[in-house]
Amino acid sequence: MIKYPNGINKTYTEKKRIVVKRKSAANRGMSLEDSINKACEYYKDIDKAIITKRPTPINVVKVDYSRGALITQAYFEKQSTTDYNGIYRGKYLDFEAKSTYLKTSFPLANITPHQIEHLKAVIRHGGIAFFIIEFEGRLEAYLLDAAIVLDFWDKGERKSIPYSTIKEKGLLIERKYQPPLDYLKAVDEYYFK
Amino acid sequence: MIKYPNGINKTYTEKKRIVVKRKSAANRGMSLEDSINKACEYYKDIDKAIITKRPTPINVVKVDYSRGALITQAYFEKQSTTDYNGIYRGKYLDFEAKSTYLKTSFPLANITPHQIEHLKAVIRHGGIAFFIIEFEGRLEAYLLDAAIVLDFWDKGERKSIPYSTIKEKGLLIERKYQPPLDYLKAVDEYYFK
Repeated sequence: MIKYPNGINKTYTEKKRIVVKRKSAANRGMSLEDSINKACEYYKDIDKAIITKRPTPINVVKVDYSRGALITQAYFEKQSTTDYNGIYRGKYLDFEAKSTYLKTSFPLANITPHQIEHLKAVIRHGGIAFFIIEFEGRLEAYLLDAAIVLDFWDKGERKSIPYSTIKEKGLLIERKYQPPLDYLKAVDEYYFK
Repeated sequence: MIKYPNGINKTYTEKKRIVVKRKSAANRGMSLEDSINKACEYYKDIDKAIITKRPTPINVVKVDYSRGALITQAYFEKQSTTDYNGIYRGKYLDFEAKSTYLKTSFPLANITPHQIEHLKAVIRHGGIAFFIIEFEGRLEAYLLDAAIVLDFWDKGERKSIPYSTIKEKGLLIERKYQPPLDYLKAVDEYYFK
C-alpha cells in the first residue's frame, strides 16, 4: 500500500470552482462537499477507488475571445444527474450528497426528479447507488441506500424522511482526520458484507 | 424494449454549454462530441446504458449576486479525467473522445498525463477503458482499447499512433441515423465476446 503523503502540497482544484459554500460546524468547518472531495482525493492517492465529482454545469452565454476565451456571461445550472460517480471494488458506484440544517428530518425537496430517475437507472443496471445525508446541527452524516429514498419518493405520502428512519436504515459515516469522511467504510459494510 | 421517439422535442442541454465546436464532415456535419452525446441520450432512452459526459470544468472568478448569480468572469479548464463515464452491462465504463484532422496518425499530444493516469487507474480497478478516435478526413471513428494507447504512451518512442495500428487493433464504429455513432456495439464486440 502506498503511504499517503501529508498532502501539504496538494491543490484541490474543485475548490476554485465552488463559489458559494455553506460551512458546516462539523469537521473543523469543512463543508460536506469539501469533506467528500478530500475523501475522493485520498482514496485515489492510496489507490482504493476512483470516484470523481462531476463539475457543476455552467451555461456559457458570452465569451470574449479577444481576452483569451474569457467567459463574461454565464449561469450555474442544476446537475441533471448526481454529483459523484466512479468505480470501487470493480463495481460502478453513484451517489448524491446533501446537507440539511434540520434536525428531525431530511426534506425530499432537496432532490430533483432527474436525480431520482438517474439513480433508479443506476440500480437497474447493477450499480451501487446511495445518498450521503448530513445533519449539520447534529454533526452527523449517513450513508443511505438510494432504494430507501426512492421508496419514500414513490410513495409520495411524506415530503421528508424522518431522522429516525435514516438513523435506523442508514449507516453513520465515520469522521476522522484522513479521510475526513470515510464513506467507503460504510459502503463496505452496507454493500459488500 | 421502449420504442425510441423521433426525438424532435428533445433538448440536448449539453449543446448550450459548448461554445467552440469543430464540425466534422461526417454524419451530416455533426461533431464527434455531438454524435457521442446523442448516442448516450439514445442509450439512456432505450435503457441500454447510463453514460454521461462530465460537464466542462469552469473556473469561476466573479459572480454578480445582485443579478441572480450571474457569472461575469470565468475561464474554461482542462478536464483532469476523461469526458465520459457510466455503467453498461453491470460494468464501469470510462472513455475519452478525440478527433484529428490528420489522416495517417493520431498524435499523443491530444491526451493529457492526467487522463493517462486516470485510465490506468480505471483498468487497475476492473473497469472498461477506451478511446474513441475520429479521423475527420476519413469520416471514420474507431474504438481503441486504452491499454493499447497506454502502451504507446509508456514506450515513449513515438509521438503518435499510426492510422494503420488503429485500424488493425481498434474497431470501426458504425455510423447510422440512431444512434449517430453506435459505440456500444463496438464495446460489445471488443469486451463482451
